Amino acid sequence: MAEYELHCFGESGHSYKAALMLELSGCSWSPVFLDFFNGETRSVEFREINEMGEAPVLRHAARTGEVVLTQSGVILDYLSTITGKFAAGSAIERREVLRWILWDNHKMSSQVGVLRFMLNYLPEEKRSDDVIAYLRGRVSGAYQVLEQHLATEDWLVGDKPTIADFSCCSYLYYPEPFGFDREDWPNISAWLDRIAALDGWKAPYDLMPRKA
Amino acid sequence: MAEYELHCFGESGHSYKAALMLELSGCSWSPVFLDFFNGETRSVEFREINEMGEAPVLRHAARTGEVVLTQSGVILDYLSTITGKFAAGSAIERREVLRWILWDNHKMSSQVGVLRFMLNYLPEEKRSDDVIAYLRGRVSGAYQVLEQHLATEDWLVGDKPTIADFSCCSYLYYPEPFGFDREDWPNISAWLDRIAALDGWKAPYDLMPRKA
Repeated sequence: MAEYELHCFGESGHSYKAALMLELSGCSWSPVFLDFFNGETRSVEFREINEMGEAPVLRHAARTGEVVLTQSGVILDYLSTITGKFAAGSAIERREVLRWILWDNHKMSSQVGVLRFMLNYLPEEKRSDDVIAYLRGRVSGAYQVLEQHLATEDWLVGDKPTIADFSCCSYLYYPEPFGFDREDWPNISAWLDRIAALDGWKAPYDLMPRKA
Repeated sequence: MAEYELHCFGESGHSYKAALMLELSGCSWSPVFLDFFNGETRSVEFREINEMGEAPVLRHAARTGEVVLTQSGVILDYLSTITGKFAAGSAIERREVLRWILWDNHKMSSQVGVLRFMLNYLPEEKRSDDVIAYLRGRVSGAYQVLEQHLATEDWLVGDKPTIADFSCCSYLYYPEPFGFDREDWPNISAWLDRIAALDGWKAPYDLMPRKA
């Protein structure tokens, strides 16, 4: 049995952050499919595991007993502490890593994730042009912050990849259209290439099962 | 001169999280007004301090040199580490604190903040009913998670107040209407009363200057 079980679904960028970290850190892990599109994460049973009703959930068969974690940022922090990989190198860098992960949750993945859902999975009659325009504006603002930062830096924090990179990059590897064109953001695009060149990198649907 | 300077504005719930922590921890601090409504946080000068273009910014005259921090979650974590107050008691609780702060950034304050801005500060002709309805839905989902958690717990993590409480509560103390009625959420309301009963608690506009 794998040491780590990641309850996830392929379409979830938040799940991909954890899956990518597990894979790049060489952890023994296996994905367990969460049927988000048929309401599994909103079920009473799932709420007992995660009251926030969100994927992913990580189960770690630790020596001292099972550890169950939710929130991708918590999972990334936990895994970098346990494995020592993709961690911050100093207290200052640790704060910078947390800063980018919080920003990602506030301004980036939270907005990109919903926009991508609306454009690709929500029935057309339920879509609102105003809401999509609103989210496009939010997402564009986030891309600008990232593009600017990466104009002078190879990685978000320090001089090597950290969990901050894995948090912020995740949605940008998905093939479905969601208003992100690499040609518009050359610094982001080069950074995505650097991450994808890391030993063992895989795309979201090569790491996690997706809906049929 | 105060040991801490918080660059903030009264209407910013993200700033209030930091202001409340500074005040309740008995820190020597003073607020410095950021003129958000006239574009100060979007200026080139401010972007040099915080490339994310956001309030608050904390300046700490630490013994080893000035520390400049952004992102309310980073500031809360830093202050609880420095002061030892409102901190998590164990590694498990520390992860739980981070989990709620991430959730707050992803699902709660990020949505409430924008909704409140649209309903109170955006000119009527620029408002979209669809976007407001969308945000009301997001915010209501967040309130439900909080209400449910507080049905059996006095505090978000463990048996005493932590920075997780200060992160999640902040917008809910504002007097302007933004679709939050305490009568609808009795557990949240009782929790807000518990926080407001902490020694030294003050409301947002009693801690920070607001626009004229």
